[in-house]
Amino acid sequence: MITKIDHLGIAVKSLDDAIPYYENVLGLECEGREEVESQNVKTAFFAVGEVHVELLEPTSPESPIAKFIEKNGEGIHHVAFGTDDVISQLAQAKDNGVRVLHETPIDGAGNKLIAFLHPKSTGGVLTEFCQPK
Amino acid sequence: MITKIDHLGIAVKSLDDAIPYYENVLGLECEGREEVESQNVKTAFFAVGEVHVELLEPTSPESPIAKFIEKNGEGIHHVAFGTDDVISQLAQAKDNGVRVLHETPIDGAGNKLIAFLHPKSTGGVLTEFCQPK
Repeated sequence: MITKIDHLGIAVKSLDDAIPYYENVLGLECEGREEVESQNVKTAFFAVGEVHVELLEPTSPESPIAKFIEKNGEGIHHVAFGTDDVISQLAQAKDNGVRVLHETPIDGAGNKLIAFLHPKSTGGVLTEFCQPK
Repeated sequence: MITKIDHLGIAVKSLDDAIPYYENVLGLECEGREEVESQNVKTAFFAVGEVHVELLEPTSPESPIAKFIEKNGEGIHHVAFGTDDVISQLAQAKDNGVRVLHETPIDGAGNKLIAFLHPKSTGGVLTEFCQPK
């Protein structure tokens, strides 16, 4: 069952250039930064109520985030729904004919199990399910 | 002060085509539908924790949502941050050099005061501030 929006992933060219907007204009506090080498990204997190804003800076032209920015410019990259059971959530998606990017959950940042749905099946919204381990 | 993400606005070609995904795949319940004639849109709302997902279907080719879909396809259109003071939030944005789409708040759906920031000033994220009246 989906319980909340866990985070919004936002593609940025540079964390250092993007963070002042979140701090000074929105008044949010950066909770931390992390490099996810498997995805070729550096991230910075901000809490907004129960949701986290996750800024994503590519560290290589091969990063999916670099390709996203090249095609679309900076902006919202994905929405992650928090669930208490990512496996059954994924099964429910497949039962409804949704194309998935992960047949089974993979390890994500922050000690979570995650899986992505294909935006062609979700009205153009790259969608992640995530569950704390 | 920003207290939460109030809603995510998602541009869809058709509410009737989009709603089954939110109901059957994500397991969310539609809270209601509303037509906002001033914006030439029909909307449907879903609660996800403290956030609402707001689907937006254009009712005219003149609708900003129709233009968005023509340019980008369906997908996330804007993020609305809930604040307890939209006027001071807007002033804080302008003080930081952010370009705004509304110099003063306007009436939004759901009996709220709202104002939008220009995506060129927000890293490509069309950003709304909203405050219950």
